Amino acid sequence: MPRPAAWRLSPDAYPHRDAIQTRFQDLDVLGHLNNVAFAALFESGRTRFNHAAQLWGHGARGRRAVVAQMEINYLAEGRYPDDVEIATGIGEVGNRSWQILAAMFQGGQCLATCDVTIVMDKDEAGGGLPDEFKAGLAKWRLTAA
Amino acid sequence: MPRPAAWRLSPDAYPHRDAIQTRFQDLDVLGHLNNVAFAALFESGRTRFNHAAQLWGHGARGRRAVVAQMEINYLAEGRYPDDVEIATGIGEVGNRSWQILAAMFQGGQCLATCDVTIVMDKDEAGGGLPDEFKAGLAKWRLTAA
Amino acid sequence: MPRPAAWRLSPDAYPHRDAIQTRFQDLDVLGHLNNVAFAALFESGRTRFNHAAQLWGHGARGRRAVVAQMEINYLAEGRYPDDVEIATGIGEVGNRSWQILAAMFQGGQCLATCDVTIVMDKDEAGGGLPDEFKAGLAKWRLTAA
Amino acid sequence: MPRPAAWRLSPDAYPHRDAIQTRFQDLDVLGHLNNVAFAALFESGRTRFNHAAQLWGHGARGRRAVVAQMEINYLAEGRYPDDVEIATGIGEVGNRSWQILAAMFQGGQCLATCDVTIVMDKDEAGGGLPDEFKAGLAKWRLTAA
Repeated sequence: MPRPAAWRLSPDAYPHRDAIQTRFQDLDVLGHLNNVAFAALFESGRTRFNHAAQLWGHGARGRRAVVAQMEINYLAEGRYPDDVEIATGIGEVGNRSWQILAAMFQGGQCLATCDVTIVMDKDEAGGGLPDEFKAGLAKWRLTAA
Repeated sequence: MPRPAAWRLSPDAYPHRDAIQTRFQDLDVLGHLNNVAFAALFESGRTRFNHAAQLWGHGARGRRAVVAQMEINYLAEGRYPDDVEIATGIGEVGNRSWQILAAMFQGGQCLATCDVTIVMDKDEAGGGLPDEFKAGLAKWRLTAA
Repeated sequence: MPRPAAWRLSPDAYPHRDAIQTRFQDLDVLGHLNNVAFAALFESGRTRFNHAAQLWGHGARGRRAVVAQMEINYLAEGRYPDDVEIATGIGEVGNRSWQILAAMFQGGQCLATCDVTIVMDKDEAGGGLPDEFKAGLAKWRLTAA
Repeated sequence: MPRPAAWRLSPDAYPHRDAIQTRFQDLDVLGHLNNVAFAALFESGRTRFNHAAQLWGHGARGRRAVVAQMEINYLAEGRYPDDVEIATGIGEVGNRSWQILAAMFQGGQCLATCDVTIVMDKDEAGGGLPDEFKAGLAKWRLTAA
């Protein structure tokens, strides 16, 4: 089981950051943030990042994109009611897909990383990501990616 | 982004299977099962598998184990209120860790696979998985794993 | 705080019943089904009841209805991974609204009751519930309601 | 179906207020905050209120209290990713129970009210709420309650 690279564990590596509130619902029977709750927290961070990055104006309006893969590495336990900080940016970009890479922090500690691969439907001509959309993604690349 | 091997997409590869109900809560704004809901459904399948497999009696009582990694590959969209079938078994077993491999089916189609790595705390002598516990895991190995 | 009437605590009072699975996610830090999870379980029972009752064919197609009020009375603690049984029927019917009354059981014990009031938008002529829709509701009235 | 009193719809009536983040998970298929998500949001507001009010130091340490009743009145639809404001205070106080009254606001509009009744276990002598605990509750009464 390969673990996340060291550079992934610093908030400074990511161009976008958001404070996200935890909820009582996120706790499991042991009193920690549950591992499915991590997925929900990362989803919240990701949709907020998408909103902030405004990628969908860049030649991709009306195109459909779905989550194809999600990998979470759990590094430490989280607690309620403290906020977490979710740091996000763009990783590898392919012909029809791109990675959204994120990490979650609480009290200065990295709790987890999350790598999501998004795939966009082909356009009517069978094409992949529009150039303008790729240029938008490039602005949000992780510095060390 | 490597995709799941073909043999992972058949329920027959897995020694344990459970019908799991979907919930209205699992739907996203597009009317499909949300990708975080997949993680919750797989968690339900996994805890039911753990219950059925009764691994914790095998020399590991009182030991603590946590989810270290989760990877979900999304292959098709799911719907409500149809049940999903979650098929589960054991993958690789290491010195202190083991994989729980699962796949989700609906209407004969594989919607997703989920690979989770669990890590057990060392015992007082610094030891990893007890032999008896490993023997218990071996009974639930995937046939092609 | 008025408590539910005794007749509400018997599954026999309700015309529709469904077995609903609990999830690991439903547990709170004390190891019981969380009170928000009760609301999600009741919602699952309610949407399954709506599906079974097929009310929306009865002259109300295209009309919009929203939950206006929900009251849950918590009577006993629930556990995982046992199923709950949710029993459901129709209570009072007004000019534009109707009640869906439900109760949740586990191991023969009533865990909670849930009363929901649904309100339908007026039609173009300012009318309330269509007569045909009311007749559909009447078929699912609770016997003692 | 009695609706909430007018004074309940103003944040000024409540002694405690918190900004609570919404999540993508809170959305239903119509793109609004789901009614079960309202219950989770109110629970988050309530546990944060309990934390801020520090009631449990007031002679009640070790006593157990459970949610006995929850009533939510839904007044308007909510949206993501805007925050909601949850305003909270204490309503009626009985021998063994008390009400936590709350309202949720977004963009200056009241989306819902939530009335929860909490019941405390008797102490060893069969007693109800300790006097010191009641005094603590009194500090957080709604001004118009």
